Amino acid sequence: MSELDLMSKITSLCKRRGFIFQSSEIYGGLKSAYDYGPLGIELKRNIAAEWWKAMVHERENIVGLDAAIFMHPHVWKASGHLAEFSDPLVDCLNCRERFRADKAPVKEPGEEVSYLVGGRSGGEQKTGTVSDRGYVCPNCSCPEMSDERQFNLMFRTSIGPVDPLQSAIDDIAEKSLSKKEIRERIEEALHPSSIYLRPETAQAIFVQFQNVQQSMSMKVPFGIAQQGKSFRNEIITEKFIFRTCEFEQMEMEFFIEPGTQDEWMDYWVNARMDWWKKYANDPTKFRARAHEACELAHYATACFDIEYEYPWGFDELEGIASRTDYDLKKHAEESGTKLSYFDQQKQDPETGKNGWRYTPYVIEPAAGLTRGLLVYLCDAYCEETGVDANGKEKSRTVLKLHPRLAPYKAAILPLVKKDNLPDLARDIVSSFFDSGINARYDEQQSIGKRYAKHDEIGTPYCITVDHQSLEDKTVTIRDRDTTEQVRISLEEAVKTVQSRLGKA
Amino acid sequence: MSELDLMSKITSLCKRRGFIFQSSEIYGGLKSAYDYGPLGIELKRNIAAEWWKAMVHERENIVGLDAAIFMHPHVWKASGHLAEFSDPLVDCLNCRERFRADKAPVKEPGEEVSYLVGGRSGGEQKTGTVSDRGYVCPNCSCPEMSDERQFNLMFRTSIGPVDPLQSAIDDIAEKSLSKKEIRERIEEALHPSSIYLRPETAQAIFVQFQNVQQSMSMKVPFGIAQQGKSFRNEIITEKFIFRTCEFEQMEMEFFIEPGTQDEWMDYWVNARMDWWKKYANDPTKFRARAHEACELAHYATACFDIEYEYPWGFDELEGIASRTDYDLKKHAEESGTKLSYFDQQKQDPETGKNGWRYTPYVIEPAAGLTRGLLVYLCDAYCEETGVDANGKEKSRTVLKLHPRLAPYKAAILPLVKKDNLPDLARDIVSSFFDSGINARYDEQQSIGKRYAKHDEIGTPYCITVDHQSLEDKTVTIRDRDTTEQVRISLEEAVKTVQSRLGKA
Repeated sequence: MSELDLMSKITSLCKRRGFIFQSSEIYGGLKSAYDYGPLGIELKRNIAAEWWKAMVHERENIVGLDAAIFMHPHVWKASGHLAEFSDPLVDCLNCRERFRADKAPVKEPGEEVSYLVGGRSGGEQKTGTVSDRGYVCPNCSCPEMSDERQFNLMFRTSIGPVDPLQSAIDDIAEKSLSKKEIRERIEEALHPSSIYLRPETAQAIFVQFQNVQQSMSMKVPFGIAQQGKSFRNEIITEKFIFRTCEFEQMEMEFFIEPGTQDEWMDYWVNARMDWWKKYANDPTKFRARAHEACELAHYATACFDIEYEYPWGFDELEGIASRTDYDLKKHAEESGTKLSYFDQQKQDPETGKNGWRYTPYVIEPAAGLTRGLLVYLCDAYCEETGVDANGKEKSRTVLKLHPRLAPYKAAILPLVKKDNLPDLARDIVSSFFDSGINARYDEQQSIGKRYAKHDEIGTPYCITVDHQSLEDKTVTIRDRDTTEQVRISLEEAVKTVQSRLGKA
Repeated sequence: MSELDLMSKITSLCKRRGFIFQSSEIYGGLKSAYDYGPLGIELKRNIAAEWWKAMVHERENIVGLDAAIFMHPHVWKASGHLAEFSDPLVDCLNCRERFRADKAPVKEPGEEVSYLVGGRSGGEQKTGTVSDRGYVCPNCSCPEMSDERQFNLMFRTSIGPVDPLQSAIDDIAEKSLSKKEIRERIEEALHPSSIYLRPETAQAIFVQFQNVQQSMSMKVPFGIAQQGKSFRNEIITEKFIFRTCEFEQMEMEFFIEPGTQDEWMDYWVNARMDWWKKYANDPTKFRARAHEACELAHYATACFDIEYEYPWGFDELEGIASRTDYDLKKHAEESGTKLSYFDQQKQDPETGKNGWRYTPYVIEPAAGLTRGLLVYLCDAYCEETGVDANGKEKSRTVLKLHPRLAPYKAAILPLVKKDNLPDLARDIVSSFFDSGINARYDEQQSIGKRYAKHDEIGTPYCITVDHQSLEDKTVTIRDRDTTEQVRISLEEAVKTVQSRLGKA
C-alpha cells in the first residue's frame, strides 16, 4: 500500500466509523482542527489512561498535576517563549507565497534559477540569482523575497474587562505618527492584558514545583506528570492529526540530583520505548534517535526522540530531554522565589557539611497524545483477504488495536431483535459492566455486517446470543484477529475478555 | 462554622494537601485561574469518570464527543454568541471603578445619594441624583457614570501566519481618520483571522450532529456527551473555583422527537439529581429550581437549575434546558447543511404518509465539573472532636469523600521503614493495582500523623503492616469515617475496599 493510500484509507475510516471528524466541517472546516468522535474519544481516553496508570498511579515517586491553560505572562518571559518561540517567516515577492525560511529549498548563493512571473503557468519565464540567504521560494523558485521576520507561535488573547485599544486610538488620532510608531502604540496597548495559550504543559510543572514538592513531601528523585492541551500557531500544519495548532501532550518532569542525568536519561528512554511497544503489533517500527549537538535546544544537554515509522517515514512521537536546572533557575530568577531542594541525608559537595541544598536537574519525557493515537491507528490498520466457510474469497478491514486501547472490549449481538434475545444480550452487557469492562450492545443490521463493523472499529470480541443461548446459557464468541468462533458459557465469555485485557 | 470560615478552611486544606493551587502563584497568580495539584487532579478525574460511565458507557443511546476548543467563527455567529454573549459594562466617573450594570445596586430614579469625591475616605462629600438607569456605582455610590457598552465574554485570538495589523497601519498612517474610523480599521484588520475560545462545549455537539448520527447509526432519542474546557472572560470572578475564566463542563445534548420535551425534561432532571446525590453525604443540600419565564434564554422553553447549598447559600451546579430545535436550525441555516433526522417508522404528522423527517428537539443537562468538585469538597469537609484511647480529647479534620471519588482508595503503611515491612507493604500495593484499585504506599512520619493526613485527603482506608503481618499475613485496616481498626487477612483487606467501592 502506498503512503498516500494508507493515510487516505485511515482518514476515511476515521470519518466513516466515528473516530475523527474535521472540526466545524459543516462550515468548511477550520485549519487543521479535528474533533474526536464517539470512538476516537474512547481510543484517546484509553491511551491517556494507560499512560497515567503507568506514569503516575503505579509509581511511588511520581504525582500528577492539571494546570490551567492560562498562566501569568511572566511565565513565558522566564521560559524564553516570548522572545524565542518563533519561526522565520518570508514572503515571496513574485508569487506572494508566505513560507518558513528554515524549511525552504536550499540553493547555492550565486546560482542562477529560473521562475515564472507571478508564479503562474503562462507567466513569462525569468532568471534570478540566489542571494546570500541560500534559499528560494518553495512555490515558484523565485529568489527575490521580503526580509525574514520572526513569527511567534504562541496564541495571544486578552483577559479582563479592558478595552485595550482606547488609549492607543486617542494617541494615534491626535498625533502624527510613523507607521512604526502606530504599530508600537497598538502593540503596547494590547500588551498589558495579553495572555497566551500555553505552547507546552511543561512550564506549569516548573512553576508549581515548590507547591507540589511541599504539599506531597516528595523526595528527589521524583516526577510531576501532566496531560493536557497545548496550542501552537503552526505556519505549516500537516498529515492529518500529526501536526495541528491544538494538540494534546503527556509530559513528565523528573527532578533528579545534579550529576545523575546520564543514568536517568538511559532509564527513561528505555522505559518510554517499552511503554510504546507494549501496545503495538509491530514494535520494530519504533526507534530512539539521539539528537545531534546542532539540533539541541539551548537549555538541553542531550535529547532523544522516540520516532515511529509513519506511512511517510520515521518521524517524531516523543522527545526525552535532559534540561539541566535551566527552567527552575530561570523561574527562580524571574519570580524572586527560591526553587530548590534540601537533602538532609547528603553532604554538600562544596562545603563537605551535612545537608545539601541544590536546584534539581530535570529529565523530561514529553509525548504527544494525539500523535500516539495516530501511531496506534497506523499500527492497527490491516486489510486481509481470506476464504469464507463456502470457499468464497473475501476481504476485510480490521483495526488490530491492543485490547486495552480498543474503544469497546466486547460487542454483544442478539442474532435477531426478538424472542427475548435482546433481553439476554442486555443482561450480558450488564455483567461486563459489573466487571468494569466497556461492552456495547448492538442489534442493528445482519450479523455479518455487525462483525465487519466491529472488525473495522477494533472490537476484540463479538459475542453472539442465539436461541440456543436461551436454553443452555452458552454464546458464541468471535475473535477479531483470527475470526475464529467458539461456543462457550456466559461466565467463560466474561473471563476470556478479562484475561485478554489482563495486564498491558 | 461561618461561611467565610468554611471556605477559607477548604481553600487552605486544598493548598496544604495538594488539591488546588493558585495558577502561577510564584508570579503573584493570575486572575481566578487555578491549578489542580496531585490530589485535586485525581478527585477531578474520578468525578469526570463517574459521569462518563453513567452518561456514556452504561447507556446504549448516548455516545461521546471531544471537539477542538477552536471552531470556525461562523459557529458563534450562528449560535448568537458573537452578537449576544455579552455583559453591560460601565465606568464610574467618580472613582473609575468598572462594573456590570446588571449587578449594580438598584436605586429609585430621582433619589438623592451622597458619595465621597474620588471614592476615597477623606474626599469631599457630594450629593447626586440617580438617573433613569436606576443604579449607582457599587464602589462609591456615585450616580454619574459612562454609557453602558456591551462587553463580549468570548476570548478572541488570531490563527494563521498573518500580520493582521499591517493593512490597517498603512491606512491609518496615510489617511486622516476619526477615532471611530481608526477603531473600525483596527477591528476590521483583526477580524478575518479572529477565532474564539469556546464559551461552552454544547455548540460543537450541534455542529457535529450529522457526523455522529450517521457514523454511529444513532436513532432518536439519542444523546451526544462531551467533557472539556470552556472559557469566559468573566468581569466578576468569585468564590474560589466557583466562577473562573477557564473552567470544565460536562454537557450532553439529548435529541428527541418534537412534542416529547416535557417527559424527557422530567426524566433528565430526576436522573441528574439522583446522580449528584449518590456521591453526597448530605443529599438534602441539592434542589431543583425551575426558571421563571423572565430568566429563560431566548431559545429555551423551560430550564431547571440543580442547585447546591454552598457555604454562601443555594447557587448553580447544573442547568437542564429544553432548547427546542433552535440550535440545529440556526446551524442548518448558517451553514446551508441539512441537519435533520428521518424516522422511517413514524408517520409525518402533516401529510400522514409513512416516514417523517424532522429537526430533533433537544434537552441539555449541562453540568460544571470544577463546580462539582467544589460541591463535593464542601459536602465532605468535617471537623470532629473525639476521645483517644487514653481518654484525651482530640480533634481531627476529615474529608468524607465518597470512596469512588477519593483520590486514593487505600493507603498502605509500613509501621516502620525496616525489617522487611516496606517490601510486604509494596506487595500489598501491587495486589491492589492488580484489582484495579488506586492504592498509595506511604512510609513517611509517625503512624498517627499518617492517619491524620489520610483523613484530611479523604482516603477511605489505611492498611498498616506490622511485625505480626510478616508472621501471619494479617494487617490492621482503619476506617476513615469511624476510625475503627480491625485486624484481618490480606485477602480480606482487598475485598473490604473493593466491596465499599462496589457500584456507586
